[in-house]
Amino acid sequence: MDQLDCNIPNIKKIPGQKLASKKSNNHQTIVDVQGIRIGGKSLVIIAGPCAVENKSQLLDTARLVSEYGAHILRGGAYKPRSSPYSFQGLEEEGLELLQLAKLETGMPVVTEVMDARQVALVGSNTDIFQIGSRNMSNYSLLREVGMTNKPVLLKRGMNATIDEFLWAAEYILHEGNDQVILCERGIRTFETAYRNTLDLNAIPMLKSLTHLPVIVDPSHGTGHRWMVGTMAKAAIAAGADGLIIEVHHQPDLALCDGDQSLYPEEFKKLMEELTILAPAVGRKIHDKATILS
Amino acid sequence: MDQLDCNIPNIKKIPGQKLASKKSNNHQTIVDVQGIRIGGKSLVIIAGPCAVENKSQLLDTARLVSEYGAHILRGGAYKPRSSPYSFQGLEEEGLELLQLAKLETGMPVVTEVMDARQVALVGSNTDIFQIGSRNMSNYSLLREVGMTNKPVLLKRGMNATIDEFLWAAEYILHEGNDQVILCERGIRTFETAYRNTLDLNAIPMLKSLTHLPVIVDPSHGTGHRWMVGTMAKAAIAAGADGLIIEVHHQPDLALCDGDQSLYPEEFKKLMEELTILAPAVGRKIHDKATILS
Amino acid sequence: MDQLDCNIPNIKKIPGQKLASKKSNNHQTIVDVQGIRIGGKSLVIIAGPCAVENKSQLLDTARLVSEYGAHILRGGAYKPRSSPYSFQGLEEEGLELLQLAKLETGMPVVTEVMDARQVALVGSNTDIFQIGSRNMSNYSLLREVGMTNKPVLLKRGMNATIDEFLWAAEYILHEGNDQVILCERGIRTFETAYRNTLDLNAIPMLKSLTHLPVIVDPSHGTGHRWMVGTMAKAAIAAGADGLIIEVHHQPDLALCDGDQSLYPEEFKKLMEELTILAPAVGRKIHDKATILS
Amino acid sequence: MDQLDCNIPNIKKIPGQKLASKKSNNHQTIVDVQGIRIGGKSLVIIAGPCAVENKSQLLDTARLVSEYGAHILRGGAYKPRSSPYSFQGLEEEGLELLQLAKLETGMPVVTEVMDARQVALVGSNTDIFQIGSRNMSNYSLLREVGMTNKPVLLKRGMNATIDEFLWAAEYILHEGNDQVILCERGIRTFETAYRNTLDLNAIPMLKSLTHLPVIVDPSHGTGHRWMVGTMAKAAIAAGADGLIIEVHHQPDLALCDGDQSLYPEEFKKLMEELTILAPAVGRKIHDKATILS
Repeated sequence: MDQLDCNIPNIKKIPGQKLASKKSNNHQTIVDVQGIRIGGKSLVIIAGPCAVENKSQLLDTARLVSEYGAHILRGGAYKPRSSPYSFQGLEEEGLELLQLAKLETGMPVVTEVMDARQVALVGSNTDIFQIGSRNMSNYSLLREVGMTNKPVLLKRGMNATIDEFLWAAEYILHEGNDQVILCERGIRTFETAYRNTLDLNAIPMLKSLTHLPVIVDPSHGTGHRWMVGTMAKAAIAAGADGLIIEVHHQPDLALCDGDQSLYPEEFKKLMEELTILAPAVGRKIHDKATILS
Repeated sequence: MDQLDCNIPNIKKIPGQKLASKKSNNHQTIVDVQGIRIGGKSLVIIAGPCAVENKSQLLDTARLVSEYGAHILRGGAYKPRSSPYSFQGLEEEGLELLQLAKLETGMPVVTEVMDARQVALVGSNTDIFQIGSRNMSNYSLLREVGMTNKPVLLKRGMNATIDEFLWAAEYILHEGNDQVILCERGIRTFETAYRNTLDLNAIPMLKSLTHLPVIVDPSHGTGHRWMVGTMAKAAIAAGADGLIIEVHHQPDLALCDGDQSLYPEEFKKLMEELTILAPAVGRKIHDKATILS
Repeated sequence: MDQLDCNIPNIKKIPGQKLASKKSNNHQTIVDVQGIRIGGKSLVIIAGPCAVENKSQLLDTARLVSEYGAHILRGGAYKPRSSPYSFQGLEEEGLELLQLAKLETGMPVVTEVMDARQVALVGSNTDIFQIGSRNMSNYSLLREVGMTNKPVLLKRGMNATIDEFLWAAEYILHEGNDQVILCERGIRTFETAYRNTLDLNAIPMLKSLTHLPVIVDPSHGTGHRWMVGTMAKAAIAAGADGLIIEVHHQPDLALCDGDQSLYPEEFKKLMEELTILAPAVGRKIHDKATILS
Repeated sequence: MDQLDCNIPNIKKIPGQKLASKKSNNHQTIVDVQGIRIGGKSLVIIAGPCAVENKSQLLDTARLVSEYGAHILRGGAYKPRSSPYSFQGLEEEGLELLQLAKLETGMPVVTEVMDARQVALVGSNTDIFQIGSRNMSNYSLLREVGMTNKPVLLKRGMNATIDEFLWAAEYILHEGNDQVILCERGIRTFETAYRNTLDLNAIPMLKSLTHLPVIVDPSHGTGHRWMVGTMAKAAIAAGADGLIIEVHHQPDLALCDGDQSLYPEEFKKLMEELTILAPAVGRKIHDKATILS
């Protein structure tokens, strides 16, 4: 029982008893999103803007990342912001634009849900729920997405230990939804040279403890556009099952996270580099043709 | 704009513009809970068990802490737990027991609300909403309690900077509720000798930046019963407006946080020590007689 | 055995075996510096500038802090600086000025030693060796001061756990010098509102584990002049045996740490406040008259 | 000027003025150790035991890592240990054994120096000085190795920011020795699942700021043997110029760091994997034949 927990003398946790725990070396969950299999040998790339801002921004970005090889489109309709005065997302209009982008590109979409009351609405407009870092310990929300049968991309809290991260996943699994993808996105440390400290150690550690797929967000993990490609490659070498990367058709005009969003051409170059790197660590990029067919 | 925020070029934050910001040296909000004024010269003591466990536990503890001088009763009906298999609180039954204890002792109560959908129900059974550390950045929940006119005790997130803590309060104030009490309860650091690292530096820093009252939770802040009294005194010397302390009539049998809960006699001794200490730093313990009269 | 240690299967550490460990509740070391007893009921106040800059700066500051009640004079002759281009101290000239100030005011002095090769020279010009935070794990230096019979003020490293801090003290004790004073001076955390995060939890924790005196440095611990007095009081309420405070006769002109140095009048006011506070927590300020007589 | 520094009003640091700073994109220092060029396109692998324990341990391990492709032998003769009661190294005997191993295998050696007084002795028995994490801010020691003309492998302090790390290197460069190799070896965070948190973000960040070579120590960075290979590969993908890896001929019997030391066969397998990985990120393993010829 971790330090956050109260102590109940008569309940004893048996190691390996968690639903999230790996039962054997080969025990591995594959989360299948319309034929895109996350957690297998093939690497899955999620890309798109931080926030859905307007139709042309989303569609232009979506078409480009799709053309360059992304499998799934990301884009925030509801944005958790430190300040109530910051842009909070287009909300329902953003969800509709995501559906439009999906229709245009054929890519499934992932978007964040921040409120248990919005799970039904968001769920009918996304292929994967994202639970953001700030909400990793929002147990009501975890339970609510756990009661759906839609995949959940769960981001590690900024100060969550590996143990707490797995317990958060357990809340979802415990409600019956085993389609959980874990996402390392940087922890908070004393270092201020980067926005967060992307913790790639978490990848082998999580892969050893759980059967759930593990992906990495080098955009939030570093906060610097010029670091994203390098850390993306390091994440794949460390064993990640995929990446979620912020790309914007015009990063300099982005309403949100422009400094860490790749230009489309940078994303293209990264995809080419990953295609070379993947086989060197026994992986390959998911074959996009198989999705659309 | 802090590192968590996206950048919107055309919105410029003017320092001092926040609703939470202090406008002058004398600017100080007093949160009045049935005549108990939090934020003034008098110190307010909140005490009670981590979780409401059953009728006799709550009533026995409540009577004792009231007798020894506590002004407000704490007790969790909904408990956020790292593991879904841990005791999650008595929920509605817990709320009813809190009302019973209030009736018996005359003390107002504070209890945690974890879900925006429970704000109405919890609100009709508590005098102060508590927002726990894990939910400090649950903006939907902050907004929901912001739309009520009931005081809110907002705990600092385990990895929240002072700046982020004040932005979280801003979400509540922005909805029109200015009855916010800030609570320092320990941050997460590399040190493992204590459950959290109670950060008393936050008290003078917050008092210099905001007009909101600031209290301290030395129970969660240390995790060790034997440290609670010492750190409670240090918190008062550092300028805290009050304390929230875990007390259990039988800590060894507690379902939750027994190791950090005071025995009633320890709480009595602490109240005596605080009564001596307060005048030495220009404060006094709130006069309990004035409440009940 | 802590995480920094290698593992030697056949050596088992027995708790309580450390020389630094408390053997009983009443086991308490008193470090006596010319009649000033550190570790007893009386609080000892060390004050003075960050660095010795010149004769008038040191003598003016020394006379003022002495007049206002300080017992021991601090001042750096050798300054560890992050950059080799920063002021590195007056070195030998600084040591001579400290001796002059001692002669003028009657106060014993404490100054930092950074290099094992300077232990003899510094030792012949100081009453207490200071080991700075950066050198807490410089074991050669710890051993060297351990081989003298002069008191050592050992500062906690910025990332040192309580356990590692006590092991560092053990290096000194193990060489035969048991005159060690521990000093909490702030740890490094994610919080950037203060220069360091003064960790007052360390005081009760250390007092429970070791018989060595524990003092606090609120100047480095906060980095802000206006926070020093508040945190000094909190430190005393938390059980510290004394304080080490930066005071400069003209902080705005200081070559070093001006932002955290008290004006002499602020130090005077703090001493008055401490004189009121101390009895409220069962302590008193060391009677200065007894020193000079 | 960083937070550790005092403030001297009339000295202004001009960005890019540091000797350690990169002057242009192509500015890159190559540290040449007997024909082994560290900092160029070729990757350099340093391997060997944590501590030199005895003749057969060192020679057996050295022969095996040499056979499997290591370029430089590591081995500690002086060991900084948290406890004075732990094994402190064979000292001079250890240095002699390193020279013997060098003679037998042809590999240059790197070993730690902990004390400025030992720089001459250690220097006459090593090809590269190692400055350990605990001594990164031991400026006397940095200056002393800066006055030699021998390469220095400088490890990042456990709580050192990137900025402070570069300032530590500056102390060496400032004395005239520009043969400095920086080594990321894990920082201290709240996470306890690993011994330290290997911070691979430091690699691209350092490579962008300085012309000095950057290598990675995945052994101390993780503390778990089974994570070393994975993180070694991630380090290379992140742009490291080399690795320093603990290997022991019998890790289960190691006096030091056995849990993080590779079995020789694991090291062999890692070298094979790195040989495949390196070209995928535009690098290659240094050709060993060119050294010995």
